[in-house]
Amino acid sequence: MERIRLGMVGGGQGAFIGAVHRIAARLDGQYDLVAGALSSSPERARESGLALGLDEGRIYDDYAAMARREARLKNGIQAVAIVTPNHMHYPVAREFLRRGIHVICDKPLTATLADARRLVKAAEDAQALFILTHNYTAYPMVRQAKSMIEAGDLGSLRLVQVEYVQDWLTEAAEETGSKQAGWRTDPARSGPGGATGDIGTHAFNLAEFVSGLKVESLAADLQSFVPGRRVDDNAHVLMRLEGGARGMLWCSQVAPGNENSLRLRIYGDKGGLEWAQEDPNYLWFTPFGQPKRLLTRNGSGAGPAAQRLSRTPGGHPEGYLEGFANIYSEAAAAIRAHAAGEAPPEDVTYPDVHQGLRGVGFIDACVRSSRRNGGWVTL
Amino acid sequence: MERIRLGMVGGGQGAFIGAVHRIAARLDGQYDLVAGALSSSPERARESGLALGLDEGRIYDDYAAMARREARLKNGIQAVAIVTPNHMHYPVAREFLRRGIHVICDKPLTATLADARRLVKAAEDAQALFILTHNYTAYPMVRQAKSMIEAGDLGSLRLVQVEYVQDWLTEAAEETGSKQAGWRTDPARSGPGGATGDIGTHAFNLAEFVSGLKVESLAADLQSFVPGRRVDDNAHVLMRLEGGARGMLWCSQVAPGNENSLRLRIYGDKGGLEWAQEDPNYLWFTPFGQPKRLLTRNGSGAGPAAQRLSRTPGGHPEGYLEGFANIYSEAAAAIRAHAAGEAPPEDVTYPDVHQGLRGVGFIDACVRSSRRNGGWVTL
Amino acid sequence: MERIRLGMVGGGQGAFIGAVHRIAARLDGQYDLVAGALSSSPERARESGLALGLDEGRIYDDYAAMARREARLKNGIQAVAIVTPNHMHYPVAREFLRRGIHVICDKPLTATLADARRLVKAAEDAQALFILTHNYTAYPMVRQAKSMIEAGDLGSLRLVQVEYVQDWLTEAAEETGSKQAGWRTDPARSGPGGATGDIGTHAFNLAEFVSGLKVESLAADLQSFVPGRRVDDNAHVLMRLEGGARGMLWCSQVAPGNENSLRLRIYGDKGGLEWAQEDPNYLWFTPFGQPKRLLTRNGSGAGPAAQRLSRTPGGHPEGYLEGFANIYSEAAAAIRAHAAGEAPPEDVTYPDVHQGLRGVGFIDACVRSSRRNGGWVTL
Amino acid sequence: MERIRLGMVGGGQGAFIGAVHRIAARLDGQYDLVAGALSSSPERARESGLALGLDEGRIYDDYAAMARREARLKNGIQAVAIVTPNHMHYPVAREFLRRGIHVICDKPLTATLADARRLVKAAEDAQALFILTHNYTAYPMVRQAKSMIEAGDLGSLRLVQVEYVQDWLTEAAEETGSKQAGWRTDPARSGPGGATGDIGTHAFNLAEFVSGLKVESLAADLQSFVPGRRVDDNAHVLMRLEGGARGMLWCSQVAPGNENSLRLRIYGDKGGLEWAQEDPNYLWFTPFGQPKRLLTRNGSGAGPAAQRLSRTPGGHPEGYLEGFANIYSEAAAAIRAHAAGEAPPEDVTYPDVHQGLRGVGFIDACVRSSRRNGGWVTL
Repeated sequence: MERIRLGMVGGGQGAFIGAVHRIAARLDGQYDLVAGALSSSPERARESGLALGLDEGRIYDDYAAMARREARLKNGIQAVAIVTPNHMHYPVAREFLRRGIHVICDKPLTATLADARRLVKAAEDAQALFILTHNYTAYPMVRQAKSMIEAGDLGSLRLVQVEYVQDWLTEAAEETGSKQAGWRTDPARSGPGGATGDIGTHAFNLAEFVSGLKVESLAADLQSFVPGRRVDDNAHVLMRLEGGARGMLWCSQVAPGNENSLRLRIYGDKGGLEWAQEDPNYLWFTPFGQPKRLLTRNGSGAGPAAQRLSRTPGGHPEGYLEGFANIYSEAAAAIRAHAAGEAPPEDVTYPDVHQGLRGVGFIDACVRSSRRNGGWVTL
Repeated sequence: MERIRLGMVGGGQGAFIGAVHRIAARLDGQYDLVAGALSSSPERARESGLALGLDEGRIYDDYAAMARREARLKNGIQAVAIVTPNHMHYPVAREFLRRGIHVICDKPLTATLADARRLVKAAEDAQALFILTHNYTAYPMVRQAKSMIEAGDLGSLRLVQVEYVQDWLTEAAEETGSKQAGWRTDPARSGPGGATGDIGTHAFNLAEFVSGLKVESLAADLQSFVPGRRVDDNAHVLMRLEGGARGMLWCSQVAPGNENSLRLRIYGDKGGLEWAQEDPNYLWFTPFGQPKRLLTRNGSGAGPAAQRLSRTPGGHPEGYLEGFANIYSEAAAAIRAHAAGEAPPEDVTYPDVHQGLRGVGFIDACVRSSRRNGGWVTL
Repeated sequence: MERIRLGMVGGGQGAFIGAVHRIAARLDGQYDLVAGALSSSPERARESGLALGLDEGRIYDDYAAMARREARLKNGIQAVAIVTPNHMHYPVAREFLRRGIHVICDKPLTATLADARRLVKAAEDAQALFILTHNYTAYPMVRQAKSMIEAGDLGSLRLVQVEYVQDWLTEAAEETGSKQAGWRTDPARSGPGGATGDIGTHAFNLAEFVSGLKVESLAADLQSFVPGRRVDDNAHVLMRLEGGARGMLWCSQVAPGNENSLRLRIYGDKGGLEWAQEDPNYLWFTPFGQPKRLLTRNGSGAGPAAQRLSRTPGGHPEGYLEGFANIYSEAAAAIRAHAAGEAPPEDVTYPDVHQGLRGVGFIDACVRSSRRNGGWVTL
Repeated sequence: MERIRLGMVGGGQGAFIGAVHRIAARLDGQYDLVAGALSSSPERARESGLALGLDEGRIYDDYAAMARREARLKNGIQAVAIVTPNHMHYPVAREFLRRGIHVICDKPLTATLADARRLVKAAEDAQALFILTHNYTAYPMVRQAKSMIEAGDLGSLRLVQVEYVQDWLTEAAEETGSKQAGWRTDPARSGPGGATGDIGTHAFNLAEFVSGLKVESLAADLQSFVPGRRVDDNAHVLMRLEGGARGMLWCSQVAPGNENSLRLRIYGDKGGLEWAQEDPNYLWFTPFGQPKRLLTRNGSGAGPAAQRLSRTPGGHPEGYLEGFANIYSEAAAAIRAHAAGEAPPEDVTYPDVHQGLRGVGFIDACVRSSRRNGGWVTL
């Protein structure tokens, strides 16, 4: 099976998420990275491209030029990964989408709600797919959880508790030279949300994805604990979901001892589920009135939804990169089906531009609610 | 050292918490149970009393009669444990307090805020002590946590996350004959709060006790998920604490798979702490920028605040009953000092009527906020 | 129900295990401690006795005198707890047993195999019961495990893995004034086994108790890692059990980071069980080909064998002292039945002198095998 | 940087470990798989090769032919991955080594000790490298553990406890059509060891690698619990290591509830370490007399030895495939240095043929000892 020709915008040397996307694209052997505008600095773009083994002729420092040229090349890229800061997602995506090049874009969708709406339009108008890398949705045991809820194992859902907790911004890292901290706490590049945008959107997306319920309204209390910080670094959010379910969402970047503690708990009138990103091969299932059960990836009790995204037997832990690679594999299946003029296989699923819009809507709602002293706002 | 003569009101056969109080009183050999009005049914009172080895002459079916007579007896009780449903706490306590008999009372303080205020007055006017059994405050590692915060190990506090989660009311147990479920979901006996009153007050009290910060205001979203239930069985609460700290409190009795999952996490600008009631001999301490440390009761890193309430070496788990007994031992120390006309030893501490009032205020605030669609209310 | 009158030999101020026995005796309200020879030093005996509230007339400094006199008193003790160093167990027990006073004795049974055999004889000849406090056998979830194995939930047993690991003798504590370390590493008072005697016997006893299988032979490699230590501080043991099952036992007092890590794992051809003393309210049950299940004390899946030794609902942890108290309660049931001339209730069980003999036989076998370079020896 | 041209022998459709090697080779973008003798069945070889996108001209069904031809090609493979059953490792490796093609071979080294010795000779004589994929040695936190021991953080080592426990052979899977179970329990293809060969060698290798100590002698008790099984499915092993350290090794394939529970604990006179393969991003460090510390991959306390083999920040779990890929990356560094006529960078390390020989020696010693009723044998 021929590999999909992939380009990348952003992700030059020193960037974290670009390297993750490249590993994810490589892991299952479905993509070849063949072009890139890895930096807007020509020199850095070139160095980064060469280090990745790109042909000199396909190293760009201008994403628009890249889009134009690759669209004309006989063996031009079929898809592009966008791993820039948030404010660039829309303009970059637009250039590729309008030329029929599929876009695999990092989250959140955009820095502003206006851009998000424009991007939805652009994606809807395009002859190309748009995939948003809410990577946590592609962990096997997250799929297992979703499938169990769909099967009714939890009964009617009542409660959704989700949190994503970090500690890396406990101090003012943005003032001491951290490039990551710099753009992620800069509203111009990151958007109005800090923790809400960077990790809250993941938590929000995961909660909706697994529960299958949309958040209808929320009440948020946002804080910037670190003096001088321009965006929130902690958020407490109450949620009301479809069908009467309620929930809480906590995201924080100032809770010492937490690395990437994304944790989801969902309860219905028949049972509960609990999953933690840092130990992703486990899923607790707690049917009411029965002993707790620990399901393991590819172990007893894990069904086809988990198995199709697993590579190794139970007890051989798969982690973050495998989950990320699953998004790329889902995308590959969809891209191949698209090329063949077919619908993607039924079990293929990935976060799209509409989920992306909901994420940006979540940030917006958090900021609006918090400004109104935590009043409820609809999403 | 002579044992303290103890009476009990409530706690007849079949009651859960009465038996717990009796074990707690017995465990360290500081009390003798010598009188009781264990039930308002004369027959049940008598049977229960005899089963506990009480003299027939000191078995009562009327708490007021008990208070009057014991106060006159030469070797009458010095203290009484009140383990009735909530609405009886105030009238019972009043009778004993006014006669100079110390009261050890289960939580929440009362069923109504009006009663709570009356009880504060009664306690302040009395020549006797009032001890409220917020037992979780007396776990050794809870004391360890409190002492570390006092010592500044966490720096300036920013976040308090607390939850108390159960599942025993997932279905309508109050309609199928559970005595516990019956009175605890009956506003007339339990008060306006369901989960908020029964377990939310514990979580609230623990958060304030360990952090040393008072909750200034809260915003609450209360639910009664089980059809027909007359009190809340789940509550989501945002909190604003003294000094700018923020927090969330979740209490639930409808989350399948949770038994008594009381969990507290506190974060400051220098570090964090995490404790879980179901595994109470452990305390996570996470100084920012250093490896996580697992402190164990009486193990390395646990200090005198934990050691003075421990009986066994580290690795020999002490649990709920020992924590409860610690309240009784703290009370005993205070009672003995009171008898000697002295102040209690400096390190003796226990929840008192004022903390009780705050707990009832918490329930009231939750109900008020929730009725106002989660608007912030001051405590 | 009248309390059983209890005496104690050993356990004066500063001793660890004496205090544990006293709490255990008190916890369920079945015993009154009324006499004691708490120390062989008259002054220490008196001080310790008074501190415990004993009548002066029933404070002894000579256990034999105590046995003689209490046997003649109208309200003399009905049972005695022996909590001396090991070498005194036999002579003390003999004096009480021969006078029809029940003996509750700490483990190991004796310091020597010869004494153990004499004590078996003494117990068999006596009109009194002998209870050995292998306290770990009375944890509710240990009983749950045993009952599941008896019910065939694991199928035919194949493997028994048990370990009891500590770190308190990592350095030469016996040379720096630790009283506990002093006698426990002194062969004259402790017997030929160090770690094997102090904790290995617990592990061995637990393995046999839960599995229901006797160890037929073993091969042991004993070490004294700390220079100058006169007994083993670490032991590696291979075991062959009845019916073809095999096992390993590790006991150590020199493994930093371990407090009282007693852990048992048993596997049959249908499933497995795993239990850890430091988290005693949990029991893993792993039926082959099904998800792992976490049973909790008094939670779903825990049966009557666990419930009858529980005091509180699931999620309210019971620990070491409650487990120890269970031994005392089992003993009380047996003592009351004995007094009534009846057999004890069917579900009452406790470690007796024969299990004690097996424990001393285990120590002896370990020492013999290790001297023969780990050759197999029968038990 | 140009990718290394890689071939593969074995690993056709349906094989587990071949797919793992391919992902591992791909993950960091250092290799291109360009040739393969994926099966000795021509048809299966062809189908498997095409599915992997190999050129038809470089799909072989005869490994010797492949070695001959690839060695002559201008762009022939530089390295070959051998993922056949064990008995083929030696003959296949020999063909490539003698032609200067580097070999990356799955473990155990060979099926017989004689073959192992021949392979050592072949590797020593070759102008090519031999890398054995004891993949567990390349987990970042395993490297962290090794580096801490080298730095003296544990003091003088006393104890090594290692176990590798599975359950997939609890029943006679080899009789019900499992291909994996078939060859792995067939002495002709697997060698004389069953569990000892398949997973015991991993445990043994890990223990020696991390501790830095060689096992000098061992005493083993091997079992075949499943009727009719021709190799051991469980082994209990006592070990004596250099410098007076002692250890135990348990490997089993018949312990229900265990997937790939490889667990290592090492203790010295100053501290301990504990690591578990199923949760590989954590490492417990327990300095004597201090609180336990939980080190995390790329978190605080993890040093350069772990960081250089990490791709993502702490809290983004890396797992089995990343660990396996680390072996491939270490191999790539060595291969590139070899091509440049240089020594590999100082911190590059991988299991080689000599460690492979020790592993086969371990199997042999286990079998010999067990036949002698567990007598000690030297390694």
